[in-house]
Amino acid sequence: MSAGQHTSNVTAAGRNEWIDVGLALGFELPTITSSYSTNDVALYALGVGAAATADESRELRYVYEHHADGFTTLPTYAVVPALNYVYELAKRGISAPGLSYGLERILHGEQSLELVRPFPVAASLEHSGCIKAIYDKGKNAVVVMEVLTRSADGELLARNEVSLVIRGAGGFGGERGPQHDSGGIPDRTADAVSAFKTAENQALLYRLSGDANPLHADPDFARAFGFERPILHGLCTLGIAVRQIVGRLCDNAPQRVKGVRARFSGSVYPGETLVTEMWKADHRILFQSKVRERDLVVVSSATVHLHT
Amino acid sequence: MSAGQHTSNVTAAGRNEWIDVGLALGFELPTITSSYSTNDVALYALGVGAAATADESRELRYVYEHHADGFTTLPTYAVVPALNYVYELAKRGISAPGLSYGLERILHGEQSLELVRPFPVAASLEHSGCIKAIYDKGKNAVVVMEVLTRSADGELLARNEVSLVIRGAGGFGGERGPQHDSGGIPDRTADAVSAFKTAENQALLYRLSGDANPLHADPDFARAFGFERPILHGLCTLGIAVRQIVGRLCDNAPQRVKGVRARFSGSVYPGETLVTEMWKADHRILFQSKVRERDLVVVSSATVHLHT
Repeated sequence: MSAGQHTSNVTAAGRNEWIDVGLALGFELPTITSSYSTNDVALYALGVGAAATADESRELRYVYEHHADGFTTLPTYAVVPALNYVYELAKRGISAPGLSYGLERILHGEQSLELVRPFPVAASLEHSGCIKAIYDKGKNAVVVMEVLTRSADGELLARNEVSLVIRGAGGFGGERGPQHDSGGIPDRTADAVSAFKTAENQALLYRLSGDANPLHADPDFARAFGFERPILHGLCTLGIAVRQIVGRLCDNAPQRVKGVRARFSGSVYPGETLVTEMWKADHRILFQSKVRERDLVVVSSATVHLHT
Repeated sequence: MSAGQHTSNVTAAGRNEWIDVGLALGFELPTITSSYSTNDVALYALGVGAAATADESRELRYVYEHHADGFTTLPTYAVVPALNYVYELAKRGISAPGLSYGLERILHGEQSLELVRPFPVAASLEHSGCIKAIYDKGKNAVVVMEVLTRSADGELLARNEVSLVIRGAGGFGGERGPQHDSGGIPDRTADAVSAFKTAENQALLYRLSGDANPLHADPDFARAFGFERPILHGLCTLGIAVRQIVGRLCDNAPQRVKGVRARFSGSVYPGETLVTEMWKADHRILFQSKVRERDLVVVSSATVHLHT
């Protein structure tokens, strides 16, 4: 795949009331610009729990714009403007043809981030997107959207792949799709383990970075979806995990991260404790995150790719 | 005092290297417009600890813009655009003549807020200000700035009085000024007591509402000022206390608040527990807040005025 171009997988067409693969697959979404400030970068960092405990003073550089060691954007911030692009499209009433479902059906299934260049502490950006793949998982469908984010002068900064699980929208006779597996967790004790107790209002804070899906704030909406109460954003969980990894296995050098891939295999309730186990493997760190209180794996098949 | 007009106290002139009363007193600062969004209102609410614990679910309406009971602006939010006006003046290089000191000398001493109308959940505003009083406390000086905030169509919404203590800038031969005292705390057990453990990153979050004084984020700056580490904003402490009062003695009806006055008699370190004692007194609630860990009064001579 050449850098900076959208590519679509070829797959058998199929359709049902929510999805028409023939219409949707490969659809290219219009380019939209956005910008962010140092305040946005700091707000995101607090949203993923930076500097939340007294012993995380080294994380002040993600939050304080005049830090003596240099204010730094967390690598996973790169997912935020991409997701906000998707929300902005929806706000403008722009959607791919052949996709007819609402937020009441969508869960974030997987996320892949290729960080081509580190994100500055403030920038103007432009985003473009395409419907890259649509899979039929039987009961559910999976829609993969690719978002390319460029600087204002056209340099590719990041490629995000957002895999959305569309509940109940499968069974249209489409391809099942590949299994993205990192090969599983090594058969040895983790090289490092890091625990973080999320705040009761962690999701309420994270959502101010842009993902205002009511699933993360509205008790009634969450119950109608089948959850006890609002859940944490998958990308908040991922941001916490990668922050833990940068702190424990990357000498707090976030610029070493060149990519992240993860599956959201379970949901986190705000207030729960996220325990991330990490294994070094060449230029990768394999990891998984569990909720301690329910001994439940919530992030799996997960990898941080490092610069060599 | 007629609503909507700045007034200045007459006082004896005096000067030293930081303050020239004759030049500064009564100086009228230019009108500047600003605006805020529902995101700003929610960010402020989280900054003063709203919905931070599971039993504060009634506070979700301060944080979630689509809340079924109606998204509501906390009354003390009204201090934020006024303080941001003061910062914006500084950013534009506009200052009253005769005042020559920097942030390294300024502490927030007292705050008075008259809430003429409740603040909507988003608005365009215009602000004007004047140097209302300058007092000579011996070692320190006190500079009182009045800020009037109006809606875009010119209706007065709020009058703020910001009293700044200018350390070491007293002794210029000026008036000592009045003692604003609510008459002290009643000689009986408090009618309600509410405790709130601030987050370790409470100040880092609060500052994203606009008050980016390094005293609240920068360990070196705070130490140079004589503090062990960065302190919480006085207005953050006040916002927490009024939120506690609205929850305990105002049936969670923030629109009952028509004014707030408080003295910041001590500083709070993020992570400490704020215990607010409250007494009903006609259409007022008298209160004081202490840091539990150091048994130190940090907010005193404090009153919430209620609508009759």
